[in-house]
Amino acid sequence: MNQVNFRPATRQDLPDIVRMLADDELGSQREKCEDPLPEPYTIAFEQINRNADHRLIVAELDGKVIGTLHLIFLPSISYQGGLRAQVESVRVDKQYQNLGIGSEMMKWTIARAKEDGARMVQLTTHKTRQDAHRFYERLGFQGSHLGMKLNLK
Amino acid sequence: MNQVNFRPATRQDLPDIVRMLADDELGSQREKCEDPLPEPYTIAFEQINRNADHRLIVAELDGKVIGTLHLIFLPSISYQGGLRAQVESVRVDKQYQNLGIGSEMMKWTIARAKEDGARMVQLTTHKTRQDAHRFYERLGFQGSHLGMKLNLK
Repeated sequence: MNQVNFRPATRQDLPDIVRMLADDELGSQREKCEDPLPEPYTIAFEQINRNADHRLIVAELDGKVIGTLHLIFLPSISYQGGLRAQVESVRVDKQYQNLGIGSEMMKWTIARAKEDGARMVQLTTHKTRQDAHRFYERLGFQGSHLGMKLNLK
Repeated sequence: MNQVNFRPATRQDLPDIVRMLADDELGSQREKCEDPLPEPYTIAFEQINRNADHRLIVAELDGKVIGTLHLIFLPSISYQGGLRAQVESVRVDKQYQNLGIGSEMMKWTIARAKEDGARMVQLTTHKTRQDAHRFYERLGFQGSHLGMKLNLK
């Protein structure tokens, strides 16, 4: 396999990102993958893009976008003022799964978190994504917390 | 009980905040509650304080700081570009627990999240904090996710 390349997402990557977010059991209920994309996606992209704490990333293989993740740096009082790195919305294109790309994406992310002085990397995954739990455990993550959500809309 | 007042934390509140963070089983292992406070706490406070997405809040009763929480707004591509409100580091002073103050703090937080257009409120709590799980469930939160952390230091 050729090398996976990581770069900040551009406005032009947004349809690919939304397509990957929508392309699983949970995501298909949450997203609207239409052409043109609903405007809230573009507004959110612009907010993320101009925020120095946020990095919306795409992974490319042979010039094709095959993965995405959203890395956020969060200053925090707890853990002795320790910077947190949080990862949201990790997806690998279904056609490119089980090739180790997710693992490369997370190793890249952990390296960036270390570089920027983060005290920890944190994420949540839906309880039903048991493959994901094992995947993150193999990378050293511990499932120490319960992730709780309150929908407002 | 008199009314609980909420306001943004100031530099002068930091010792009270760290004291509350340190004053439980898990927190006592993480924090260094010394006088003067270790510098990383102050650095983190300044970073949070100048960041428009972050609100470090204290709850006051009769002019005394008795609670704290850290509310963060996170733009997101997922959930159709839905804004997330995340809550970290929620604490009520031990002497003021079981008086409904935590509940008032969270209701205040949920109201602020709605006001600012958030799609959801999200938080994680350590698996051992079972009282906290029930507390958040009573407020409408669902423990749908596994919260995973990777320590880097």
